Amino acid sequence: MAAPRHRAAPDHTHPDDVAVETALAALADPVRLTLVRELASSDEWSRSCGSFDVPVGKAALSHHFAVLRAAGLVEQRDEGPRRVNRLRREEFDARFPGLLALVLREG
Amino acid sequence: MAAPRHRAAPDHTHPDDVAVETALAALADPVRLTLVRELASSDEWSRSCGSFDVPVGKAALSHHFAVLRAAGLVEQRDEGPRRVNRLRREEFDARFPGLLALVLREG
Repeated sequence: MAAPRHRAAPDHTHPDDVAVETALAALADPVRLTLVRELASSDEWSRSCGSFDVPVGKAALSHHFAVLRAAGLVEQRDEGPRRVNRLRREEFDARFPGLLALVLREG
Repeated sequence: MAAPRHRAAPDHTHPDDVAVETALAALADPVRLTLVRELASSDEWSRSCGSFDVPVGKAALSHHFAVLRAAGLVEQRDEGPRRVNRLRREEFDARFPGLLALVLREG
């Protein structure tokens, strides 16, 4: 039996429990903005973590996704060996109206 | 003749020349959020740099104001020995609609 690719299910924070500083800091990074923008233009759950065009290694990418989860921006789930993603657009917009629109229009 | 308190006039960046990442990073800090919120509830040019209730020393405070100027959030001018401040609310709102409102409503 192959070892699971991800040992533990990812922790998530709902946008309702996110401080505005945390949300701003999560979005104030060019790699994370690229992830958010690519997710915004993709179907939900269609993108695996390895499918993004960002110039960082695996450990750094894993950190960036953890920051996005902790800011209520991204939800992840494991589908066999793939960890797939969705942007929590509706929930995040309800908590921080207009913030995603602001960063997406600049993409 | 007394030495001037500030040796050089402060550099400013207009909000139109600010990247969204820069604006978000400037606001993603509790000390800078306090400065912005106190400025938002004060008359323009009424607040000197030493008048804010933030738990940081002079050098750190000077750095925070430099970040706010570089993000197009704050304008400063010297009036004799005092360096006074205004929030660039109108210009910043024109460049990043809704962003200041978002951080001010949480204050």
